[in-house]
Amino acid sequence: MEHQPINLEDKLNKFTEYWSPKIIAKMNNYHFKLSKFKGEFVWHNHTTTDETFLVLDGAMTIEFRDGKVELQKGDMFVVPKGVEHKPSAVNECKVLLIEPAGTINTGNAGGELTANDNVWI
Amino acid sequence: MEHQPINLEDKLNKFTEYWSPKIIAKMNNYHFKLSKFKGEFVWHNHTTTDETFLVLDGAMTIEFRDGKVELQKGDMFVVPKGVEHKPSAVNECKVLLIEPAGTINTGNAGGELTANDNVWI
Repeated sequence: MEHQPINLEDKLNKFTEYWSPKIIAKMNNYHFKLSKFKGEFVWHNHTTTDETFLVLDGAMTIEFRDGKVELQKGDMFVVPKGVEHKPSAVNECKVLLIEPAGTINTGNAGGELTANDNVWI
Repeated sequence: MEHQPINLEDKLNKFTEYWSPKIIAKMNNYHFKLSKFKGEFVWHNHTTTDETFLVLDGAMTIEFRDGKVELQKGDMFVVPKGVEHKPSAVNECKVLLIEPAGTINTGNAGGELTANDNVWI
């Protein structure tokens, strides 16, 4: 069995692009993904699953149709299944996402910001 | 819908006991739990699930029958289902655990360190 820790900072240093989640670990049928956010993402929802955001560095906003949540470093939030949301970040924000393997970043919305859901780093 | 971030530091300040995971969030049928480790835990395994450790502060060791992994702040590790392990920490270590709701901290081993698996903070 592999006995190496997964260091979040080391993994974050392996990529620069925004809105393109990279898988760093698998737990049962869930993936842990790192992503860097900057600017505005698209409105979307995930019809079959909740989605967890944990801010590792920086700050971000998740807008909902009925409000928003502001997340700073050390904050986490679980967006419930089916709830429309739009992530954004004024400056670069580093985020750990936890969600089922195969979850597409743009959910039901699709479009040009849709990333490959199976890239490991 | 609730729009409050979950701040890990605030939640960590709400308890002092060791080896007693506290739930801070639910994603589908999984729980995010904070725990403080100090000293030696018991050998055990979880027969039905992987278990994720993310070190928020301090350092810890997970021993396996065939080796060990040392985790520092910013490191994570997924212990595979069924793999015997024994967590320990020389000094206090603050950990985020991610695992299915109902996962018992001592797994198959039981004993006096077995904690209530459904305490929210």
